[in-house]
Amino acid sequence: MKFAIILSGCGVYDGAEIHESTMVMLAIDKNGGQYDIFAPDVSQHHVINHLNGEEMDEKRNVLIEAARIARGDIKPLNKYNPSDYDALILPGGFGVAKNLCTYATDGVDFKIDTVVEKALKSTHEAGKPIGALCITPVLLAGIFSEADLTIGKDKNTAADIEKLGSVHIEAGPGEVVIDNSNRIVTNPCYMLDSSISEIAEGAENVVKAIMEMDS
Amino acid sequence: MKFAIILSGCGVYDGAEIHESTMVMLAIDKNGGQYDIFAPDVSQHHVINHLNGEEMDEKRNVLIEAARIARGDIKPLNKYNPSDYDALILPGGFGVAKNLCTYATDGVDFKIDTVVEKALKSTHEAGKPIGALCITPVLLAGIFSEADLTIGKDKNTAADIEKLGSVHIEAGPGEVVIDNSNRIVTNPCYMLDSSISEIAEGAENVVKAIMEMDS
Repeated sequence: MKFAIILSGCGVYDGAEIHESTMVMLAIDKNGGQYDIFAPDVSQHHVINHLNGEEMDEKRNVLIEAARIARGDIKPLNKYNPSDYDALILPGGFGVAKNLCTYATDGVDFKIDTVVEKALKSTHEAGKPIGALCITPVLLAGIFSEADLTIGKDKNTAADIEKLGSVHIEAGPGEVVIDNSNRIVTNPCYMLDSSISEIAEGAENVVKAIMEMDS
Repeated sequence: MKFAIILSGCGVYDGAEIHESTMVMLAIDKNGGQYDIFAPDVSQHHVINHLNGEEMDEKRNVLIEAARIARGDIKPLNKYNPSDYDALILPGGFGVAKNLCTYATDGVDFKIDTVVEKALKSTHEAGKPIGALCITPVLLAGIFSEADLTIGKDKNTAADIEKLGSVHIEAGPGEVVIDNSNRIVTNPCYMLDSSISEIAEGAENVVKAIMEMDS
C-alpha cells in the first residue's frame, strides 16, 4: 500500500511536527507500506525560534525546510496525483494551521492553500482514505462536511470543527476516530500532552486503520 | 535510567539526522527511560538546502535549530553535568562532523568543540556509558583510544577510525558493537542504506545495550 505524506515545514511551531512526521514514516514502513513525501512550494507564514518561542527575522520555504525531515527525498505538492497512491496522510504541527491554511490567524474563516485543497479534494473524490494527525482535522473540516473527526479533547478547537459542519469525537492518546463513509482516520497526537511513544502509537493506529479499511 | 541526548542541529546535511534523533528518543521512552536534550550553543558550519544539496547564504545556530527536534525542551550543552545522568547518547548526521567537530573538512586531523569534548570526557571519566550512532563513532575515536567502534561498512571512514587508534568492527543495520571496557555502544544507522524501521531498530538496540550494561 502506497501512501503520500504531506509535510508543512520542519518544526512544531512554524512547520510540520517532527516526531509525528517521522512516526508516520516509521508506521508505514514497519507495516509493509511505502511512501512518498510532498510539501507545498510556498513561503512559511513566519519563522519561530524554537528555543525561546519568538519570531525570527528570516524567511524560509516550506518545501525546502520539509526536505530536512525527508532527507531530500521530497516532491512539490503540485506534482501529487492521487492515482499514484492508495492513501494520503498529514502529520500535524503549527505549519498545518499557518502554511497549509490560515486557521492559526483567521480561525474558522481560514483560507486553504489551493494546491493543498486540490490534493485533499482529488484524493477524496478518488475514494481514497485520508489520515490526519494533531491539528490537521481542522483543515479537513474546512473542506469536507459532516465528517467524524478528533483533535483530542481541546474544547475550543473541537467547537471550531463543529462550527465548520463536522462532528467532533473526543479521543485519548493512541485512539483513532474512523469515519468510514468519508474514508477519514484521525488521531490527536500532540494536541494531547503525550509521550513520544504515544505519538508512535497514534501514528501506527492511523496507518493500520487505513490499511484495514474496506476498499 | 536517565539519558542525556546531544544533538548537532536539525537536518541530515548540516545538523542532526532527524530520524535517528527521534528514534533514540522513542527507544528511551518505550523502554522506560527518561531523557533530556542538549546541543552546543554555536553557529552551524553552514546551512544546506536539503532539497537541492546546495549551500544557502544564511547563518543558523545549532542549539536553536536542534530545539526544533526537541520541541523547545532543550538545554545548552555547557549546562550538562554527567552526575545528573546515567548515560549519554549521540545521534548522527553531518552536524556531528561539521558542528561538533571538523571531521567533514579536516579528516583525521579534526578539532573538537571544547564543550562537546568536555561532555564526552567527563561522562567517560564518571564511568557512564556512551551510545553513538551513524558517523558519531569517528568523533569518539578522536577522544578515546583503543575503542571498539562501528560505522557500518564504509571502508574510508573505517580506515580513519583505525588511524585514530581505535578498532573498527563491521556491522549491519540494527547490529550494535559493544565495547564493555570503554562502555561505548555504536550502531551504523544511516551510514548504511537503511530503512527508517532499521534506524528505529538500531537506536533501540543501542539504548537496550546501554540499559543492560553492567554498572
